[in-house]
Amino acid sequence: MIAVDAQRLLGRIRELGAVGRDSEGRLIRLAASDTDRLGRDLFVGWLRQAGLDVAIDRVGNIFGIWQSPDNAGQAPLLIGSHIDTVIDAGIYDGCYGVLAGLEVIETLKASGFSPPRPVAIAAFTNEEGVRYTPDMMGSLVHAGGIGFETVLAAVGTDGSVLGQELARIGYAGDKEPGFLKPHAYLELHIEQGPVLEREGVPIGAVENLQGISWQRITIDGVANHAGTTPMSMRSDAGHAAARVITFLHDRAKASNTPTVATVGTIRFEPNAINVIPSQAVFTVDLRHPDEQRLQAEEAALAACLEQLAVAEGVTISVERLARFEPVIFDIRIVELIEAAAKNRGLGVKRMTSGAGHDAQMMARIAPAAMIFVPSAGGISHNPREHTEDADLVAGANILLDVVTDLAK
Amino acid sequence: MIAVDAQRLLGRIRELGAVGRDSEGRLIRLAASDTDRLGRDLFVGWLRQAGLDVAIDRVGNIFGIWQSPDNAGQAPLLIGSHIDTVIDAGIYDGCYGVLAGLEVIETLKASGFSPPRPVAIAAFTNEEGVRYTPDMMGSLVHAGGIGFETVLAAVGTDGSVLGQELARIGYAGDKEPGFLKPHAYLELHIEQGPVLEREGVPIGAVENLQGISWQRITIDGVANHAGTTPMSMRSDAGHAAARVITFLHDRAKASNTPTVATVGTIRFEPNAINVIPSQAVFTVDLRHPDEQRLQAEEAALAACLEQLAVAEGVTISVERLARFEPVIFDIRIVELIEAAAKNRGLGVKRMTSGAGHDAQMMARIAPAAMIFVPSAGGISHNPREHTEDADLVAGANILLDVVTDLAK
Repeated sequence: MIAVDAQRLLGRIRELGAVGRDSEGRLIRLAASDTDRLGRDLFVGWLRQAGLDVAIDRVGNIFGIWQSPDNAGQAPLLIGSHIDTVIDAGIYDGCYGVLAGLEVIETLKASGFSPPRPVAIAAFTNEEGVRYTPDMMGSLVHAGGIGFETVLAAVGTDGSVLGQELARIGYAGDKEPGFLKPHAYLELHIEQGPVLEREGVPIGAVENLQGISWQRITIDGVANHAGTTPMSMRSDAGHAAARVITFLHDRAKASNTPTVATVGTIRFEPNAINVIPSQAVFTVDLRHPDEQRLQAEEAALAACLEQLAVAEGVTISVERLARFEPVIFDIRIVELIEAAAKNRGLGVKRMTSGAGHDAQMMARIAPAAMIFVPSAGGISHNPREHTEDADLVAGANILLDVVTDLAK
Repeated sequence: MIAVDAQRLLGRIRELGAVGRDSEGRLIRLAASDTDRLGRDLFVGWLRQAGLDVAIDRVGNIFGIWQSPDNAGQAPLLIGSHIDTVIDAGIYDGCYGVLAGLEVIETLKASGFSPPRPVAIAAFTNEEGVRYTPDMMGSLVHAGGIGFETVLAAVGTDGSVLGQELARIGYAGDKEPGFLKPHAYLELHIEQGPVLEREGVPIGAVENLQGISWQRITIDGVANHAGTTPMSMRSDAGHAAARVITFLHDRAKASNTPTVATVGTIRFEPNAINVIPSQAVFTVDLRHPDEQRLQAEEAALAACLEQLAVAEGVTISVERLARFEPVIFDIRIVELIEAAAKNRGLGVKRMTSGAGHDAQMMARIAPAAMIFVPSAGGISHNPREHTEDADLVAGANILLDVVTDLAK
């Protein structure tokens, strides 16, 4: 069996991870920023060095295409992920998949393999969605889910306009978004969760991706004096919010299913120690890999809110912030991943992706699946994000095998 | 029976309530500010007009003293409250008690009453505690609970220093704090709660004041991805905080006692929609008129936190922000208030003050009690704060009667 060049792959992950550090050493390469440009320049240099054709589309998605006159007419096999980061990021999220894809192509090229179709690697713009919304932007545009004019007009958290920033850093390309129609799509990624590590399994064959429901809930009660208002005469918006949080937690925990429910943000008004909150605003993040179950969770929350409004004398309004249906990945590719792992003597587990990935957008236009490797402690979006070198190399070799199969 | 001049009293309440409005019409007379100076100047003008001796102490407490050569050696009967306000205040909180006290003295003077001891009215500095902490500052200094040098060095929310601000607005007086040793202390105040209105009783004879326990609780869990972290593997600081809120609410509500428990402020870290909170910081305001019961409530909260730390895998730290023991007012004065109400054919109810007042400080150095009048809807610290004119006048007449009794 051929194998990737482990030192080249690991070296590049570290080299890219050193680009975009601030004065405190924090890794920050927000989409279309000056540090993102530095990361892109490094990656494009490696693409050219590998002899790939470099193409950049109007939203800054970067493609490195390995094709020959013989196979140029065929739909390419596409590998992808992203190289933008969150604030104070780890070095693996996204970058690992992009650099492993490049590594796989270089390995195959060097091996004398002559695929009947092109193989390409993509780095999609603004997967993280920290500076501009929505997240997974570049792949969403590529899959035709949103117009490129719309996202180029996106205004960032810093007031910048994405289109202007892409032009400024030299990554407003000329390719029409979606120009490359993939035969299939593969993405290798760190799990960003604790399951593989906990179970001691090195390879995840990702068969689906959770549906995501994001809602913002506003509860309006009545501000009143914390000392003079008897408990029986209160309309306490903060207490009502706490009831929702415990309801969601208890229901998800008791369900014995993959349901996850998170209240990550909260704000009270007037937020004074001796005033009963007149208002509580919080977000709910609900996820489930099955659309019907996700809808059932949303309905249970709605019923809880309705009862609470009566019981607590509050008014409740709900705003939908985001909603993605679950994604079912291509079962044949999932089976190829499993077979490749077994063939290399590696444990493998079918699993669900709890996080969003570019693969979920690409699954709209091509058979797609993902490969996961373990994340130490399940930690991600954090400088402590870590995957063992052996796991990184193992994942890249599985990608190599599946690409070889799919490119045939 | 003599009675106060209702029109003069109501007119002054409205006149003082018009002083210190901002461009949006909001009433803001924070302690030692330019608008506080305007309110003080108006009040001092009325004191002089009434022929009272004006004295100002080092922390800006204003006293209007009605004394004669015959009674100047006796301990004076002191009436007091405050004329500083919160931001966007109503016109009654504090000001009503101060202006009714002045009104009572003028009425008694005009009636030819010759009391055997001086009668004085006090407006204490910074009762509200919005600009400088602690609240009830002027009366606390007067009662010897804190040194005047300490409070003069207090730095405000706007970075100002109280001592400098008092000097700037001309109210850094020369009297030693505590110079006036009261024979007894009376305070007339709006209830700031819903009880009198709900029960249709115009006069409250305040027999005690709740003890107050303020704590800040910090819960530390582990930030993690909202999608990839199974419910069973979470240490969710936000969920743990919600458990505390529902525990406190359910316990207080079920207790069928005057216990009140309020969580008025909360903050999550990192406060991101898709990140399990690593930290939740919130405040707890517990009140009870009985010290042993208040201690029992504090102990129940501590036990809850201890169990929660184990059950949720979080660490919890508690910081005490403020603690006042309950105050028992002087039963003889409470009985005088009840008798005066009955004598005027007014309903009266013994009650507990849920809010803090200058009277709780003065109770440390003299027999003290308070008279309450109804607050519409229990609303206070709000422009909708309202008490009917008839109730305002009735309260002032009860104060007149009790002052007449006590001054004898």
